[in-house]
Amino acid sequence: MSTPAAKRQKSSKDVPYHLIYWAGLPGRGEHVRLALEEAGASYTDTAHIEDGTNQVLALIDDKYTGDDTNPPPLAPPILKHGDLVINQTPNILLYLGPKLGLAPKLGDDDEDGLYHVNELALTALDGLSNEPHDCHHPIASGLYYEDQKEESLRKSKDYVANRLPKFIGYFERVLKSKTSGDGPWLYGGKLTYADLVLFQCFDGLKFMFPKAVKKLEDSGDYKGVFALHEAVKERPNIKAYLASDRRQNYGMGIYRNYEELNVTE
Amino acid sequence: MSTPAAKRQKSSKDVPYHLIYWAGLPGRGEHVRLALEEAGASYTDTAHIEDGTNQVLALIDDKYTGDDTNPPPLAPPILKHGDLVINQTPNILLYLGPKLGLAPKLGDDDEDGLYHVNELALTALDGLSNEPHDCHHPIASGLYYEDQKEESLRKSKDYVANRLPKFIGYFERVLKSKTSGDGPWLYGGKLTYADLVLFQCFDGLKFMFPKAVKKLEDSGDYKGVFALHEAVKERPNIKAYLASDRRQNYGMGIYRNYEELNVTE
Repeated sequence: MSTPAAKRQKSSKDVPYHLIYWAGLPGRGEHVRLALEEAGASYTDTAHIEDGTNQVLALIDDKYTGDDTNPPPLAPPILKHGDLVINQTPNILLYLGPKLGLAPKLGDDDEDGLYHVNELALTALDGLSNEPHDCHHPIASGLYYEDQKEESLRKSKDYVANRLPKFIGYFERVLKSKTSGDGPWLYGGKLTYADLVLFQCFDGLKFMFPKAVKKLEDSGDYKGVFALHEAVKERPNIKAYLASDRRQNYGMGIYRNYEELNVTE
Repeated sequence: MSTPAAKRQKSSKDVPYHLIYWAGLPGRGEHVRLALEEAGASYTDTAHIEDGTNQVLALIDDKYTGDDTNPPPLAPPILKHGDLVINQTPNILLYLGPKLGLAPKLGDDDEDGLYHVNELALTALDGLSNEPHDCHHPIASGLYYEDQKEESLRKSKDYVANRLPKFIGYFERVLKSKTSGDGPWLYGGKLTYADLVLFQCFDGLKFMFPKAVKKLEDSGDYKGVFALHEAVKERPNIKAYLASDRRQNYGMGIYRNYEELNVTE
């Protein structure tokens, strides 16, 4: 299969990764940042450069139809690597993971492992990132939270009572599987990007629903997930990153700390 | 990177694919079915075998912790291929796509194309499958529709007014990109699984929101997406499949035809 465009030169990728995402909040771009930071990869980030926001806007403009080798992306995060421009958080991680040593490679003895890491990342993003977002925007992402407060409270109550324990319980179970291997990691006895995704989601949930997360902690039933969160936080590169000003504060993004939504049931 | 388990023998995959999904509705399993059917692949399907539902239940049981080489899946669709067991719709398609000739392979001249096909499939599933589902379950997937009817109407109105045109407009724009190539397809001038995903989503939306889809058609602004839907429907293998009793009717799944939600604004 080939595109009508000229073949890309492999050498175009001997350049730093470039993350294109909104400034001012961790958001879904944070999953990409954590992978790059853990691996000590060379990268630039529109969150920290002048005119960064305009780079985002240019690529998601509804008149933009892509370039010679890339279709237009719908939304950030977007990764540019040489001539390649891709979006969708789990897709960017799939691209980066094997290159950064954060997932098995196709062609390796454990090549099927890439599909396991991908499925774990997708599941964490579904239940621990998209659903929390919808807790404060259950009716419409284009409306203000203030226009859907009542529905948000109703959804948040269901989320902490049913969905949060379901998803955290699932990852606890994955941590007990044979394929989890040694150590605190989800797959193969080694840190993968699925661990980084779970870390970031759980970190955001601690900010958004502190009471519900405390209740999970007190139950003693989810020790593996809490241990994974701590283990990622202590990775030297992650620790340095979290202490740096490259790590942005939670704000009006996916994970929001509305006191009225900080419920336990 | 290796798992603690013994290496899988490649020969274990010289067997038909086995789709593990609920019987009685197309659901997210349909995306996997369409890929297998288009490719004329040999497969079995729990929707059509005795005891099929128990196979689903066994793998998603909240006591199940996977096997020697596979973590437990959270939810179906699940694909079993030899010893490999994976879940998550876009992940299964990523696995099948290159094998079935429905996506570029890593190692091909256009290997980056796999990430483009993956991002297009992910975006279609986000906006044209997950969001429609949430139109009838905006508050809680564990509650009945009847317990969230008012919120469903509010969300459906926003969906058809804002989200549906946004996503269909995005795919129309992708069809106009250089990387779309010749013919009615999204990427590379050739049918990929992203086209099959968009077909299935659009087909479901025509069932769920017929008035809103008619309005899109009448506008004349989305001819590419309508043409893609027709082109997929006329693929010989797809046509035969859709006419067979393997194709299940829409019912109480993702796409539901509630007259009160059949709105245009």
